[in-house]
Amino acid sequence: MARPIVRSGGREARIKARTAAAPVYLPAVNRQVGPINLLGPDGVQKIHRGAMRILWDIGIVFRDARALSHWKQAGARVDGERVHIPEELIMELMSSVPPRYTFHARNPARSVQVGDNFSIFANCYGSPFVYGLDGVRRRSELADTKNFLRLAQMSQAMHISGILPAEPQDVPVPQRHLDLVSSALKLADKPIMGSVISEAAAQDTIDMLRIVFGEEFVDRNVVVTALLNCNTPLVWDETMLDALRIYAAANQPALLTPFLLAGASGPASPFGGVALLVAEALAGMAYAQIVRRGCPMVMGVALMGVSMKTGAPMLGTAEPGLMNLLVGQMARHYNVPWRSCTMWTGSKMADIQAGYDSANSMWPVMLGGCNFIMHSAGFVEGALGVSYSKWVQDSYQLEGYHRFFSGLADEALEPFLSDIQSVGPGGHFLGTDHTRENPFSMNPLQNNDSYEKWLDDGAKSGEQVGVEEAKRQLDAYIEPSLDEDLSDALDEFVAAKRRVYAAAA
Amino acid sequence: MARPIVRSGGREARIKARTAAAPVYLPAVNRQVGPINLLGPDGVQKIHRGAMRILWDIGIVFRDARALSHWKQAGARVDGERVHIPEELIMELMSSVPPRYTFHARNPARSVQVGDNFSIFANCYGSPFVYGLDGVRRRSELADTKNFLRLAQMSQAMHISGILPAEPQDVPVPQRHLDLVSSALKLADKPIMGSVISEAAAQDTIDMLRIVFGEEFVDRNVVVTALLNCNTPLVWDETMLDALRIYAAANQPALLTPFLLAGASGPASPFGGVALLVAEALAGMAYAQIVRRGCPMVMGVALMGVSMKTGAPMLGTAEPGLMNLLVGQMARHYNVPWRSCTMWTGSKMADIQAGYDSANSMWPVMLGGCNFIMHSAGFVEGALGVSYSKWVQDSYQLEGYHRFFSGLADEALEPFLSDIQSVGPGGHFLGTDHTRENPFSMNPLQNNDSYEKWLDDGAKSGEQVGVEEAKRQLDAYIEPSLDEDLSDALDEFVAAKRRVYAAAA
Repeated sequence: MARPIVRSGGREARIKARTAAAPVYLPAVNRQVGPINLLGPDGVQKIHRGAMRILWDIGIVFRDARALSHWKQAGARVDGERVHIPEELIMELMSSVPPRYTFHARNPARSVQVGDNFSIFANCYGSPFVYGLDGVRRRSELADTKNFLRLAQMSQAMHISGILPAEPQDVPVPQRHLDLVSSALKLADKPIMGSVISEAAAQDTIDMLRIVFGEEFVDRNVVVTALLNCNTPLVWDETMLDALRIYAAANQPALLTPFLLAGASGPASPFGGVALLVAEALAGMAYAQIVRRGCPMVMGVALMGVSMKTGAPMLGTAEPGLMNLLVGQMARHYNVPWRSCTMWTGSKMADIQAGYDSANSMWPVMLGGCNFIMHSAGFVEGALGVSYSKWVQDSYQLEGYHRFFSGLADEALEPFLSDIQSVGPGGHFLGTDHTRENPFSMNPLQNNDSYEKWLDDGAKSGEQVGVEEAKRQLDAYIEPSLDEDLSDALDEFVAAKRRVYAAAA
Repeated sequence: MARPIVRSGGREARIKARTAAAPVYLPAVNRQVGPINLLGPDGVQKIHRGAMRILWDIGIVFRDARALSHWKQAGARVDGERVHIPEELIMELMSSVPPRYTFHARNPARSVQVGDNFSIFANCYGSPFVYGLDGVRRRSELADTKNFLRLAQMSQAMHISGILPAEPQDVPVPQRHLDLVSSALKLADKPIMGSVISEAAAQDTIDMLRIVFGEEFVDRNVVVTALLNCNTPLVWDETMLDALRIYAAANQPALLTPFLLAGASGPASPFGGVALLVAEALAGMAYAQIVRRGCPMVMGVALMGVSMKTGAPMLGTAEPGLMNLLVGQMARHYNVPWRSCTMWTGSKMADIQAGYDSANSMWPVMLGGCNFIMHSAGFVEGALGVSYSKWVQDSYQLEGYHRFFSGLADEALEPFLSDIQSVGPGGHFLGTDHTRENPFSMNPLQNNDSYEKWLDDGAKSGEQVGVEEAKRQLDAYIEPSLDEDLSDALDEFVAAKRRVYAAAA
C-alpha cells in the first residue's frame, strides 16, 4: 500500500536521488508586495456593520444542542436553533484570537508561520476523482492519496503535506482518517491537516499527533489545522461543530470556512457576499473561543461565481478575485489570519484554461495578503478532481509566486553601472560575473526551447510534461525518517482503532 | 486577398451576425486597483540617479548623423557616435512630454486614453510564424495578418487593431507597409499602429492617415502610435531614428522601447536593468522632444529573463514581473505614459504553460499601472509565433482583467441584507432578483461543465476550443464601413506607391 504507482527504472533513480543535493525547502512567503486595500475606513465599517446586523438581526443557525447551550450561557439570544449574537459579544470573543501562530511540523525545519505578512501554500483537498498518470480519470484510491503526500514532500514551495489531496474511496469511511493521518505523518515531515468527518476522527487525529509530538507539546503548540465548512447561508452543522470542539479543546486551530457560490449560496454581490461570509466565519471563530479562550483560529473563505447559463461554479473569474481583496482587508481589520482557495479550474484537463484559471485565482489571493492558501496544487474539474500532471505543474508555479511576493532585495547600483560601462553600447552581459551568478528564477517545466528542439524532443504539451515529472518525482521520492518507536506506536494505535471501528460497523 | 481563410457555412453565420446585437466594446480600463509602488522615494532616486549617470558618464550611441548634430546643438557632449547627456538637458526635454493623450480611431467611439490611470490592450506584433486554424505552424502570410486584424475588430476588450500581428512574408518588404496600414485602417475601425521599417514607410503611414482623418486633424491629434526598439545596451540606430523623426514631426507618438534580456542585453539585476532601460527610453523620448516639442511619447519596455541553462528568453517569470513594477513607478515619477509586454509564452502550443505564462506576465504589468499593453493576445514560441487559438483565448481573458482592474462600484448593503433575511439559513439565492440580474463576468470559452457533459461534447482541450472560436469569429466578422471616397483614395495611394517601390526594386 505504501508503494507508489510508478517504480519503473527505480533503482537507478533512487541512487541518483540519494546522491543528489537535498531539496531546498522554502520558508513561508514573507510578503513584501501588497496587500492591496480596496476599501477606505468607511467601506470596512460598512461590511463590518453588515456582518454585525446579519449576526444580530437575522441570526445564524447552530444545528447542535451543545453549541446552543454554550451560546445561551455566553449571552447570545437563542431562538430555536437560531443564535442572535450581539456585536459586543462577538468582538469580545474575537479579541482572544491570536493574529499569528507557529504551525509545527514533526521536522522542526519545516515549521511555518501562519498570519501577519506570511503566506503558506497547502495542496488540494478531498477530490473524489483522480486524473491518473495514464491520463485516465477514475475514482480516487488510497494509493493516490499517498502518492500526492509523497509529491507534497518533494515540492520545495508547498508548505503543508495536507491530509486528503485525494479522497480514498477504497477505504471504509469510519477507518479512512486512520490511514490519512498516519500517511500524512509518515510520508512527509511537513505540517499536516486534521480529519473532521466525526468527533471520533478528530479525537483520533489529536491522539495520533500526541504520539508523534508528545502530549505536553501538543497542548502548548499548534501541530495540526482542520478545515471546517459552514453551510452557507448561515448554518453551522453538528458534524463540523463536533470536530471544532475537539480541535479547539486541544488548542488546535481550524480554517472556519463559509463556502460562497455567489448567486447560489449567497448574494451575487461583492459587498453583500463578503458581509455574509464574514458573519459566518466570525460566528465560528467566536464559538471556538467559548470552547477554549485564546485558541488560534483562521478566518476562512471559499469563494466562487456561478454561471447564470448552467448553474456551474466558475473559478478564476474577476469578481471572486475582488471579493478576496475585501476579505483580506476585513481579516486585517479583525487582526486574524485568513485562508482562501487558489489554483483551481473548471477544466477537465491540464490545458490552457487550467493555466489561466489557476494563475488568475492565485494573484488576487496573494494580493489580498492571504495567510493560509489552500488548493494551491492539483485541482481540476471544479475541485472534483485532482490531476497528477497539474499538481506538479502547479507546484513549480508556487516557486514563482514565492519569488515574486518576496519582493526585491535592496541592491547597490555601483557594480551594475560599472558592468554597463565595461560592456558598453552594443555589447552583451552574458560573460559578466553577475550574469554567471544570475539569481533569476527558472521553472524547469517551462519550455523555452526553439520550436525545432521542442519538436525533436517529442512536441510535448504541458500536460504530458506534468505527467512525466510526476513519475520522476515519485521515483526519486525518499520517505523522511521517523523514529522507529513513534512509528510503531502509531501503527499500534491504528491497528487497535481499526478493530474498534470494524467491530462497530 | 480580403477573404478570410475560413468561410464554410458562411451565409448562415453572416445573416446571424447581422441580426445579432452589436458587440459591446469596452473603453480603456480606468484602473481602480493598484498601482503597486515597491520603492520609497530613496529607491526612485537611486534608479533615477543610475539612469542619469549612465546617460552622462557612459553615454548612449545614436548611430545617425542627423541625431548627433541635433544633440550637439541641444547642448549634449557628443564624442563620435556617443552622446553624453546632462541631467538638466534630459529633464528639461522630458518636461514637455504630455502625461496622457487621446488616441483617435477612425470611429470616434473607439478612441481611447493613453496615460494616467488608463490601460489599453493591443495585440501581438511581428510574428514570422503562425499556428494556423489547422494547428500547423507555417510562415505568416498577409491573409493571416488580415484575419488577425478582423479578430481584433471582433474583440470587445482589445482596444487597438495594431498593424502587424503576423509579419506577412509573402509580400515584398518595401511594399509591406502599404498592405499593413491600409488593412489596419479598413478591416477594423480601432486605433492603429504605424510602420517603422524605413523613413519612407513611416511617411507613407502618416500620408495614409491624412487621407482618412484629414491633414489638419492629424497635425493636431494622435491617430497612430509607432513601436520603436532601442538596441539595448545603449544604441539607437538610424532606421529607428528615421522613423521617429517622421512620427514626431507629425506630432504622433512612439513607444520608445529598450529590449531587455536580463543577463544578455542588460544586467540580470532588477535595479541595474531598470536603470539601463530607463536611461535608454528617456534618451529616445528626449530626442523626440528636440524634433518636436510637446509631441506625446511613451516610455517603453520589453522585459524578459534569460535561461542560464540554454540562453533562451524566459517569459512570465517572477523577476521581470517585479521589474515591471519598478518601471511603472519610474514612469509615474517622470509623469509619462508607459508601455510593456504581456500574455506571452515560450510554449509552442496553447497549453497549460501558455495559460500560466500569459496570466503571470499580465498581472504584474497591470499592477504596475501600465498604460499601453502590447502583445495582449496571440503570442506563442517566445514571440516568434502567433496562434489563432491562443489569440481568441487571450482576447476573452482581457475582458476578465478589464473587469478586475476596474474595481468595485460602491453598493448599498440594504437590499442584500434583506435578501439574506428572506432567504434565511440553509436557503439559496438562485431566485432573488439580484441573482437573476447577476452582473458577474463569464468567459464563454471557460468550460465549467460536468465531466460527463464535457465528454459528450467531444472532450475538447482549451486549444481546440480556441481554434473553433477563431473560425466562428472570422465567419461572423463584418467589415466596418469606411466612406467610399476615402477608401478609394487609400487604394489609389497604395497603387501609386506600389508602382514606385516596384520600379525601385
